[in-house]
Amino acid sequence: MTRKVCVVVTARPSYSRVRSALEAIVDHPGLELQLVVASSALLDRYGSAVSQIEADGFHIDARVFTVVEGETPTTMAKSTGLGLLELATVLDGLEPDVVLSIADRHETIATAVAAAYQNIPLAHLQGGEITGSIDEKVRHAVTKLADLHLVSTELAAERVIRMGEDPATVHVTGCPSIDLAAGILDQPALDFDPLERYGGVGDRLDLSDGYLVVMQHPVTTEYGQARHDVLETLHAVSDVGLPALWFWPNPDAGTDGTSNGIRSFREQEHPHRLHFFKNMAPTDFLRLAYNSLGIVGNSSVAIRECSYLGIPAVNIGTRQHGRERGANVVDVGYDRVAIAGAIRERTGSARTPGDPLYGDGKAGVRIADLLAEVPLRTEKRLTY
Amino acid sequence: MTRKVCVVVTARPSYSRVRSALEAIVDHPGLELQLVVASSALLDRYGSAVSQIEADGFHIDARVFTVVEGETPTTMAKSTGLGLLELATVLDGLEPDVVLSIADRHETIATAVAAAYQNIPLAHLQGGEITGSIDEKVRHAVTKLADLHLVSTELAAERVIRMGEDPATVHVTGCPSIDLAAGILDQPALDFDPLERYGGVGDRLDLSDGYLVVMQHPVTTEYGQARHDVLETLHAVSDVGLPALWFWPNPDAGTDGTSNGIRSFREQEHPHRLHFFKNMAPTDFLRLAYNSLGIVGNSSVAIRECSYLGIPAVNIGTRQHGRERGANVVDVGYDRVAIAGAIRERTGSARTPGDPLYGDGKAGVRIADLLAEVPLRTEKRLTY
Amino acid sequence: MTRKVCVVVTARPSYSRVRSALEAIVDHPGLELQLVVASSALLDRYGSAVSQIEADGFHIDARVFTVVEGETPTTMAKSTGLGLLELATVLDGLEPDVVLSIADRHETIATAVAAAYQNIPLAHLQGGEITGSIDEKVRHAVTKLADLHLVSTELAAERVIRMGEDPATVHVTGCPSIDLAAGILDQPALDFDPLERYGGVGDRLDLSDGYLVVMQHPVTTEYGQARHDVLETLHAVSDVGLPALWFWPNPDAGTDGTSNGIRSFREQEHPHRLHFFKNMAPTDFLRLAYNSLGIVGNSSVAIRECSYLGIPAVNIGTRQHGRERGANVVDVGYDRVAIAGAIRERTGSARTPGDPLYGDGKAGVRIADLLAEVPLRTEKRLTY
Amino acid sequence: MTRKVCVVVTARPSYSRVRSALEAIVDHPGLELQLVVASSALLDRYGSAVSQIEADGFHIDARVFTVVEGETPTTMAKSTGLGLLELATVLDGLEPDVVLSIADRHETIATAVAAAYQNIPLAHLQGGEITGSIDEKVRHAVTKLADLHLVSTELAAERVIRMGEDPATVHVTGCPSIDLAAGILDQPALDFDPLERYGGVGDRLDLSDGYLVVMQHPVTTEYGQARHDVLETLHAVSDVGLPALWFWPNPDAGTDGTSNGIRSFREQEHPHRLHFFKNMAPTDFLRLAYNSLGIVGNSSVAIRECSYLGIPAVNIGTRQHGRERGANVVDVGYDRVAIAGAIRERTGSARTPGDPLYGDGKAGVRIADLLAEVPLRTEKRLTY
Repeated sequence: MTRKVCVVVTARPSYSRVRSALEAIVDHPGLELQLVVASSALLDRYGSAVSQIEADGFHIDARVFTVVEGETPTTMAKSTGLGLLELATVLDGLEPDVVLSIADRHETIATAVAAAYQNIPLAHLQGGEITGSIDEKVRHAVTKLADLHLVSTELAAERVIRMGEDPATVHVTGCPSIDLAAGILDQPALDFDPLERYGGVGDRLDLSDGYLVVMQHPVTTEYGQARHDVLETLHAVSDVGLPALWFWPNPDAGTDGTSNGIRSFREQEHPHRLHFFKNMAPTDFLRLAYNSLGIVGNSSVAIRECSYLGIPAVNIGTRQHGRERGANVVDVGYDRVAIAGAIRERTGSARTPGDPLYGDGKAGVRIADLLAEVPLRTEKRLTY
Repeated sequence: MTRKVCVVVTARPSYSRVRSALEAIVDHPGLELQLVVASSALLDRYGSAVSQIEADGFHIDARVFTVVEGETPTTMAKSTGLGLLELATVLDGLEPDVVLSIADRHETIATAVAAAYQNIPLAHLQGGEITGSIDEKVRHAVTKLADLHLVSTELAAERVIRMGEDPATVHVTGCPSIDLAAGILDQPALDFDPLERYGGVGDRLDLSDGYLVVMQHPVTTEYGQARHDVLETLHAVSDVGLPALWFWPNPDAGTDGTSNGIRSFREQEHPHRLHFFKNMAPTDFLRLAYNSLGIVGNSSVAIRECSYLGIPAVNIGTRQHGRERGANVVDVGYDRVAIAGAIRERTGSARTPGDPLYGDGKAGVRIADLLAEVPLRTEKRLTY
Repeated sequence: MTRKVCVVVTARPSYSRVRSALEAIVDHPGLELQLVVASSALLDRYGSAVSQIEADGFHIDARVFTVVEGETPTTMAKSTGLGLLELATVLDGLEPDVVLSIADRHETIATAVAAAYQNIPLAHLQGGEITGSIDEKVRHAVTKLADLHLVSTELAAERVIRMGEDPATVHVTGCPSIDLAAGILDQPALDFDPLERYGGVGDRLDLSDGYLVVMQHPVTTEYGQARHDVLETLHAVSDVGLPALWFWPNPDAGTDGTSNGIRSFREQEHPHRLHFFKNMAPTDFLRLAYNSLGIVGNSSVAIRECSYLGIPAVNIGTRQHGRERGANVVDVGYDRVAIAGAIRERTGSARTPGDPLYGDGKAGVRIADLLAEVPLRTEKRLTY
Repeated sequence: MTRKVCVVVTARPSYSRVRSALEAIVDHPGLELQLVVASSALLDRYGSAVSQIEADGFHIDARVFTVVEGETPTTMAKSTGLGLLELATVLDGLEPDVVLSIADRHETIATAVAAAYQNIPLAHLQGGEITGSIDEKVRHAVTKLADLHLVSTELAAERVIRMGEDPATVHVTGCPSIDLAAGILDQPALDFDPLERYGGVGDRLDLSDGYLVVMQHPVTTEYGQARHDVLETLHAVSDVGLPALWFWPNPDAGTDGTSNGIRSFREQEHPHRLHFFKNMAPTDFLRLAYNSLGIVGNSSVAIRECSYLGIPAVNIGTRQHGRERGANVVDVGYDRVAIAGAIRERTGSARTPGDPLYGDGKAGVRIADLLAEVPLRTEKRLTY
């Protein structure tokens, strides 16, 4: 009996993260993939992950627009409610044997509640990690709704078990995002011109003497500070003077603050060596990061994929607080002087070796195998 | 500074449970109550808790119809999504300082997600208990979304802390439902005729020689079995032969099964000594139970209020599995012979003394005091 | 090129009405049927049209639960909003070439708005009729959203054109409900025992000396009066003394009033010769009506199918006000004496001949042919 | 008895249009204003009408985020469904005596359906006009849902009556947007620097030798052509060479096409004399238009307010097709040569006198008086 595995992709970074698992599910003879694309993954201004998904050859079973516009905490909650309302209908039609929910973005709890309430076994990717902010609450709440835990690290597994989950349902698979990173090492050279391939706005940069990659998201529970926070980074990067490739943030509450900060900095400071991208194919992005002098901001990519690849990383602020990290990462606060100092230090030192902390590059296949083989059930209890 | 406390009441039993806390919040000089009534609490066929709330003199700030009809797992999920969608709007308008979510009914996660995502501190009543079924997942997921834990028992507190919550945010208040039960002991006599006051359907019963109270809900994750389960109880009660006052179930998936079971039993077996009620004022219900020979079914009232009052209880099946219980309770499976035997055993023995396991009758005031005084924050992390 | 025709069935009576058109669409080589079942058509307590649809062999492309429980004007509006929200997603997935919306029930405007806003040509069945109540507003609003008008009568066509629609888009097809009625005349005998086949509740009736069929719906804009109105009919039917087969109403605001009226009448008056049904297969219903002494209430069946079949009909109140009617119908107000008098008069006189006012029995094929052949467009303007 | 009048404002242009009526309602002793702000009126990127409303001193009773992001026909339908779902709850709480819906934007049908289904008398502003596109369907559908018609012109009144509305419910009030325009004539001088007050992006313009105002919206049913259409206008304006103040479009399906067209034109053509604004206070806008050489695009302002003020207008394409217009307007197709020619012709000729076609400047007071005095009812029928 083939098991139907329904995966709900709600954002571009979630897709990058889960892609190797999707491929392994499609390739597994005992599994059938049901792919639902929703939320910001459908929207142009967040990088239209859906186009990438189609270009990658996946069949999409349902598309559901669920983002209520406003980019405030209220619309974040409403978007999640709308997602739940419609995903319930979609799951009712698809009748999957198991649903896979990804990580900790706010809308992923819609997938988790829909599956749990419809008595469909729920597998959760990337539980047991610690970051702070609303993601922290979402991630652990999804753990309590989930029946199967596919975690990235040994420490994450230990935490999920301590939260009262049955150890038999907790599996360390590594993170499938590392699978993609592992593939980069086969052909590490930067084989394309990012400005030519992706356009973007800003200065025409010469990347030949080294460059930075910057990716900074607003921190939801600090809504209102987002503008201040990004301005500190903008000043720091500008002060250091290296060419920088800057990526726009995810569609969370606070995005407007970040976007406004960037826009006003450009208008007032007329920075010379910044170029802005909306999105990039994941392998292109990783290759670009691998060939950079370092990555700056608060993206989890800096902690996860970049640890594996040994890319120097300056992590700013609280967003990744508590997440396990390799020797590639240095942490600083929202302070332009400290950020600039950290960038200089990181880009001036020797690279650290890659660290398989978040996976060995084989997570996708491991996940597919587990989804095909483990007992699936929906009844559980605290273990204490 | 007065703190605005928003309480979302979504069902008749939740209202009974929280009522003494609502009164204490209204009476507290440092608190202002914002009361939202939603979900089945607005519906006639689930006992119209809203009428009781108004009769009790509470001002209602917003009413939101959120139940998507169908009584299937799918509509349960959709109702929760609709609740989240609209509660976000309501909370955005009310701007509370803290939101109180009650227990573990499926729709309570809508309140919890709305508050968490809108960065409003979330207090949760009755975390840390164990029951199995979907309630189990909901309860612990709400714990992971909540910032303040107002639990009923010491064991519940210990569990919440073991799940990684900061001990400083966990308070044993007792359950406010016990406050109501405690009030019964002042005037324990059955001072009304339930058939006269509440009508209902079924036989005209003589209660003077003793009677049973029965309340059996469908168990959500066993949807489809609900009809079978209630039929076992119907046969058992009928075999025992005592007059029985039977209460209709809550609006969960499976209610149709339970209702159909009851209807077909009545048509085929023409039972003589059963009378059916849709709902009853909580104090009337408790007084009725106190004067009965015992309570039968799977309601949490049998475990909580009846433990405090020392009322013999036959608890059937898995719904309350794992919940702490007093010496008043005996557990049986879905088997008419076993149920009948347990009823005979319980109603034939001496009463056990009351047990303050779930509270000492002062939970409401304790909850109001905590809501007025504790620091309110929305940032948290796993403690390990 | 095959045209994809999406039909959204939202209620049991709508299904009966459109069934012959569905069959003709399935049979037409140039058409492909996309069938969506939503709203009360999915619900047990409104006769579960979905079961009948499946039993009739139609493939269902999507099911969407959209009824927000409450049966008030507010929930009627919310149900329509929920329908629109989800039907938009469904139509986006199905990509039909034309959408067919049926008649004038409140939720049908959800289908109409979804199609119109998504630039899908909209065909409307049964425009141009007059009835009063909220149906009146809905019907004509849908006409203004529709691109193709498939009307039942010449007068309806004239009205649609007078409202400013292009005459080239208005076609008198007859009503497909008459197709079913026409089929009854081939085998008119009552060949089943309705109590045996459909159960129901109430008295065991002897139908051999004649009986009445009663079907009375609440009138939405008179919410609150529904209870009074149905009680007048109950008293009248009871006074006349003929056995009566009574059908429960549709799920509109006011249903609770009607249901409560029936329940309290039964409890207080203990009527002897009433039997109540929730629903019946349409052909069984029509055969039952054909063999009755007459039909009583405010259903459109009495005006449409019964005119064609020449069945005596007593039409009560305002619900069908303004609808064209044959010589079989007599109209009365909500008054028990008048109703009883009209029943006696109708059942005591000779039958009128059938009247092809609403169709000649070939509407379904005519509709399918038009859907396959007419130009489809979405741009229109008032003709004056 | 004071009548409660609920007005739902869903977009910046709707607010401009209704503002004088809002003021007159507030000032009327027999009326109480209930103001609901929803849809794009809450969103920054559509000019945040809500900020203007607050600045103008109106009390807002409820805010509801209803825009589902995506800017496709599907999300336009979903946004309307979400609006209906939540406005029903809002109206249920506010209990107005009459609801006022404005004009013909897609989301206004949500207000109309909510009021009609909740049996609240519905007044409709600006029925009976003709424009083509989806607005045409929406406007006339709202007319069929409305109980009171407050139209702008005699011809509009005649059309509404021909559609079957009772003449007693149709009143020619003039359009309240003209009231604002009438106020401009008291102080016509351009008393502010638009670039200084509103920022915007683009070239620093010298307005002293004359300038154009441009406002071009996508035409919904021509989704996909929006980019092409705006490019024709961009080339035309650029060829003419006059400084131009350009306003961003409304949030309809197709906005992305228009926005992309503008962005790519700027990047490729580097136009010298264009400045772009997101929004402007209505009186500032009208004063700016009054002092311009003419207005170009497809906004209804060019047809309505500019007719009253005698401002030369070049109206492009089908969006205003069928709307009555004054001698100030010349119509052209989506063709850069034709547009450029029309601009040169219009700006080179003498001004036409103002035309009171759409109102005499006293519509607001007239509307308030009618809302206070006319009989309010919800039952109606076609008059033929």
